Amino acid sequence: MAETGAYERGKALSEQVNPGMEDALAARYDALVPGLSRMVVEVPYGTFYARGVVDEKTRLLATIAALAALGGQTKPQLKVNIASARAVGASREEVCEIIYQMTLYGGFPAMINAMNAAIEVFEGEDTA
Amino acid sequence: MAETGAYERGKALSEQVNPGMEDALAARYDALVPGLSRMVVEVPYGTFYARGVVDEKTRLLATIAALAALGGQTKPQLKVNIASARAVGASREEVCEIIYQMTLYGGFPAMINAMNAAIEVFEGEDTA
Amino acid sequence: MAETGAYERGKALSEQVNPGMEDALAARYDALVPGLSRMVVEVPYGTFYARGVVDEKTRLLATIAALAALGGQTKPQLKVNIASARAVGASREEVCEIIYQMTLYGGFPAMINAMNAAIEVFEGEDTA
Amino acid sequence: MAETGAYERGKALSEQVNPGMEDALAARYDALVPGLSRMVVEVPYGTFYARGVVDEKTRLLATIAALAALGGQTKPQLKVNIASARAVGASREEVCEIIYQMTLYGGFPAMINAMNAAIEVFEGEDTA
Amino acid sequence: MAETGAYERGKALSEQVNPGMEDALAARYDALVPGLSRMVVEVPYGTFYARGVVDEKTRLLATIAALAALGGQTKPQLKVNIASARAVGASREEVCEIIYQMTLYGGFPAMINAMNAAIEVFEGEDTA
Amino acid sequence: MAETGAYERGKALSEQVNPGMEDALAARYDALVPGLSRMVVEVPYGTFYARGVVDEKTRLLATIAALAALGGQTKPQLKVNIASARAVGASREEVCEIIYQMTLYGGFPAMINAMNAAIEVFEGEDTA
Repeated sequence: MAETGAYERGKALSEQVNPGMEDALAARYDALVPGLSRMVVEVPYGTFYARGVVDEKTRLLATIAALAALGGQTKPQLKVNIASARAVGASREEVCEIIYQMTLYGGFPAMINAMNAAIEVFEGEDTA
Repeated sequence: MAETGAYERGKALSEQVNPGMEDALAARYDALVPGLSRMVVEVPYGTFYARGVVDEKTRLLATIAALAALGGQTKPQLKVNIASARAVGASREEVCEIIYQMTLYGGFPAMINAMNAAIEVFEGEDTA
Repeated sequence: MAETGAYERGKALSEQVNPGMEDALAARYDALVPGLSRMVVEVPYGTFYARGVVDEKTRLLATIAALAALGGQTKPQLKVNIASARAVGASREEVCEIIYQMTLYGGFPAMINAMNAAIEVFEGEDTA
Repeated sequence: MAETGAYERGKALSEQVNPGMEDALAARYDALVPGLSRMVVEVPYGTFYARGVVDEKTRLLATIAALAALGGQTKPQLKVNIASARAVGASREEVCEIIYQMTLYGGFPAMINAMNAAIEVFEGEDTA
Repeated sequence: MAETGAYERGKALSEQVNPGMEDALAARYDALVPGLSRMVVEVPYGTFYARGVVDEKTRLLATIAALAALGGQTKPQLKVNIASARAVGASREEVCEIIYQMTLYGGFPAMINAMNAAIEVFEGEDTA
Repeated sequence: MAETGAYERGKALSEQVNPGMEDALAARYDALVPGLSRMVVEVPYGTFYARGVVDEKTRLLATIAALAALGGQTKPQLKVNIASARAVGASREEVCEIIYQMTLYGGFPAMINAMNAAIEVFEGEDTA
């Protein structure tokens, strides 16, 4: 019964890390795709992120690695996950080190672009 | 002078985790691309992997995430990095948890294929 | 409450198009990733495939297009979706026409490889 | 002799769905690549789009699926194909449903970005 | 009138570098996709490869670079283009040098896999 | 000892084609990733670009092919390499011919986007 309560778990987690997310998604997307906002709460937050097994910081650094290597269209999600990694205690140097390693797997363009996304997040921290 | 001694650092590290690698690469590739084997020692091992900042287990789990999300042709490298993650203390459940999260970024085909690569590594452990 | 009953809907649909799927996934993956088999029932089958809005044949042809264009590691999923499209009434010519158009978006290698996957499915039909 | 008359067929189709396209392409590209504009008329329009076998709406929804899953740089083409799908009778809900399914194959970033492209097209309809 | 005679040009070129190609494609694919074999003659061979502007060797080395960087499913096409590059005078070292540079853009997995494809082609030369 | 002197070779080459690069990278990135700027000098410039075997123009056209086919996030690097190819004697028509061929491997969106990047570089030449 792994997914029993997926919505509740996802709602609690999303409100903690991204308050107001479900309402914002609903306002933008649910008239076109009924249930989209609820799915984001239930699936990524309630079914995947809330599983445990690895600690939050490791999970977020791994996500940053994947989004950096995939590159291209992932910049918005990359910035969200970098901000989340920072919020659970990852240093700027740790975030950038993980991105730097992606030179080897995603190539130089992917690495430089992800590094620039990280710098945008850090600049936002400095002006907050 | 960050890269001074890159070959020495890379050689020490590659001999520890992948003994005989430089000679094997040299035998297969160096006649076609002079210096390829040395480059693998100097660049991924000596310049990237040996940097520190994040611990080995985190670095390897992040690499596994990226290779799983990229999918396709990365299976040989994915298996090498899964074996390395196991060697530095990652449990099977941790490796699979990281791969599982890649459903969200690389899609279901990428996740299932990477999970199958992990199972191949684990089966090799059981018969070793 | 879009996802209430996602498991039940997904179970009914998966048993119809892919009988025994949850048990097969559970046997292979659930010890490593508790809940993986249930997630596949709930998320792709219960939350996405069972939504309606477009008819099954259109949905499957669109999925075939995407998997063909993505190429590479998607061959197993491509074959499953081609078989499903055939089961809901798509002709061989329709399946191949959709793949053929992917020349324009995924390039010639992607198109030819997907065409070969379709031929494998059709050969299986002929020998069934 | 499948391609006899490819230019004529392609010209008729492109003038119908995208009037002035060949001239616009010629003005921008043909000095650098002689024949580029004619190739676009002959190949995608005359050789691929004009084939029949599947109806226009299905073909366009499949194309939208592929472009959404490929993501990244495909946004201009995605918007053109969404507008074309709308012009041949696809509802907003059908377009978005097809994009939504791509969560499973292209991941969440691909889906959200394609959904945003669709919304841009719909906003253009509302202000037309 | 850039494409007038595309079939004739493409036929002459394909018979020279890949004799029997159109018939082989027709036998395998044309019942499923009428005109596929002719399209391959007309479009890649007659419309793209036969254009001139760059010499054949440069064009083929550039194609090898792209297929190596794209990686994954492109291995059959990569091997065909490596053999063609060899046939127009590219040395083994030149082919491998181009592949080697792709480390920087496609990452190490892409480079190593393409290098292995090249070695397969060279081994075929040695046993021919 | 292929890489002995990689920094010196890379520094000489990067100062020639991209003067001030190391300092610019150092100012932006080295506080976050100590050694990044030196790595770019040593690895792409000193270890890969400076190898010879193929002439500079061929190497750059091959790189342009790969970046065009990969598409998406590679636009900044594509523009740099197009400018470098022009600087070593590639004509506009040669650059665009190579990009045009990528229609076959990266699809139409990749080709058109890369062509637009080339036009931006050429417009910069005209206003320089």
